[in-house]
Amino acid sequence: VLPLESVPNFSEGRDRAVVDAIGAALAAHADVLDVHSDADHNRSVFTIVAGDDAIVDALAAGIARARESIDLREHDGVHPRIGAADVVPVVPLRPEDMDRAKAAALVVANRVGESGLPVFLYGEVGDGRGPAFYRRGGPDELQRRVDAGELAPAFGPAQLDPAAGGVIVGARRPLIAFNVDLASRDVESAKAIARVVRERDGGLPGVRALGLDLPSAGHAQISMNIEDWEATPPHVVVAAIEREAKARGVELAGAELVGLLPAGALVAAGRRSLRLAGLDESRVLELRLLQ
Amino acid sequence: VLPLESVPNFSEGRDRAVVDAIGAALAAHADVLDVHSDADHNRSVFTIVAGDDAIVDALAAGIARARESIDLREHDGVHPRIGAADVVPVVPLRPEDMDRAKAAALVVANRVGESGLPVFLYGEVGDGRGPAFYRRGGPDELQRRVDAGELAPAFGPAQLDPAAGGVIVGARRPLIAFNVDLASRDVESAKAIARVVRERDGGLPGVRALGLDLPSAGHAQISMNIEDWEATPPHVVVAAIEREAKARGVELAGAELVGLLPAGALVAAGRRSLRLAGLDESRVLELRLLQ
Repeated sequence: VLPLESVPNFSEGRDRAVVDAIGAALAAHADVLDVHSDADHNRSVFTIVAGDDAIVDALAAGIARARESIDLREHDGVHPRIGAADVVPVVPLRPEDMDRAKAAALVVANRVGESGLPVFLYGEVGDGRGPAFYRRGGPDELQRRVDAGELAPAFGPAQLDPAAGGVIVGARRPLIAFNVDLASRDVESAKAIARVVRERDGGLPGVRALGLDLPSAGHAQISMNIEDWEATPPHVVVAAIEREAKARGVELAGAELVGLLPAGALVAAGRRSLRLAGLDESRVLELRLLQ
Repeated sequence: VLPLESVPNFSEGRDRAVVDAIGAALAAHADVLDVHSDADHNRSVFTIVAGDDAIVDALAAGIARARESIDLREHDGVHPRIGAADVVPVVPLRPEDMDRAKAAALVVANRVGESGLPVFLYGEVGDGRGPAFYRRGGPDELQRRVDAGELAPAFGPAQLDPAAGGVIVGARRPLIAFNVDLASRDVESAKAIARVVRERDGGLPGVRALGLDLPSAGHAQISMNIEDWEATPPHVVVAAIEREAKARGVELAGAELVGLLPAGALVAAGRRSLRLAGLDESRVLELRLLQ
């Protein structure tokens, strides 16, 4: 039995002590495989794995710790957010484990709701809405929509916590959080390239993208979630961005992975660069040892 | 504790019953992850994994079965060979397991020698000679060199078995057996490209290559062992072959993997096609689960 994965996102990417404290809370119950903190996003993304009960305990502890330490009213990162613990996906490592992931997500959601934070559901336990649906306009706008009866939290109070906001909890298939950096601070080009590649504007299936300016990193960025990387593997996204950047006379500085990469994305890239049309995960030695 | 891997090569790639019988002998003691049979090479390559004792039992059984079923005097494949069980490498899945692999290889060698076949050593248990050193000129030439005192088997009799020949046993790091097919039977181009890419003629480090004509497949092939794929990952070899083929006006039909691919080769390819300069195995989710 493989563990479940979770990739909770917290709205603190600068204060190392706060990030470490959240990490310690998670690590008391789960294996922390990766931590990605970004000062401009002002956000930290943890990748954890654990059994079904332990992952719930880890997430509940991490969310409680974030609530104690993060005040959204003082948050000024470029990444949209509505909570101190902003989005908490539970992820099956194999498609057949989705029901386990959904069950764990609902237990987390219930536990967080009982602790007094409003919980909004998304992905496989929601009604098809993504995190962006809740984040649009920030915490104040979300509260307005709740008050207007446009939407309601699935668990917990109807009032966002002034400091900690709410939490978006869900279950979803693995995605790839992947950013491409321009070699300049030309944020208009980053926004234009984001529009070309993202599905919403007729681009690549399963790709969400935003053009952002990252002042402390000193460049503009196309910040992406590749939600369906089997439809659009990351090497296809990179090739499309390279084409578009070239057409605009913009140089790329490189790319950045947030969290971990599913091996299948490398298999897809290898299929092309090794000219192995039939390559799949069953032909990769280490992946056979996991079966 | 990870198992050991072995990739024994047998000189039969056409008679399905013989290949299946060898596979059954291996499978009685080990997990058979892959079988690659090629009619033109007239050769089958098995990929197996098992614990240290079980892999010795598997290899001894597979070699015994091949000896009963294959007569080298009737063999006419394009791949060089000196034995029914031609080459038997034991492979550590992690560099730190090399001593286990060497020990298992020597136990196999001793067991096969005691069964009455001459055993030649290579790789980490040999004196730096590769299989090609023993195969050059075929079984008759090998016997002549033994008779002339130029070399001697490390185990077993000094006389090759008339039907089953000898066995080349060794321990080595994982390699990638990888063939690129031309879209024609232009074997002269395949040989010229092989000369350009192989280390022996000043090409890419750690690459062995032969240009072959494959009549039943209907194309010429650059047949390779990428022995040091950390120095020269396969996507670099493919890019070099593509350049060389283009310069000669030759089209590629595609590539073929013999056996399994180490995940590190995909990581190396992804580093380039995803523009993730720092990508390593620790950033691949499934590989973290193996640790």
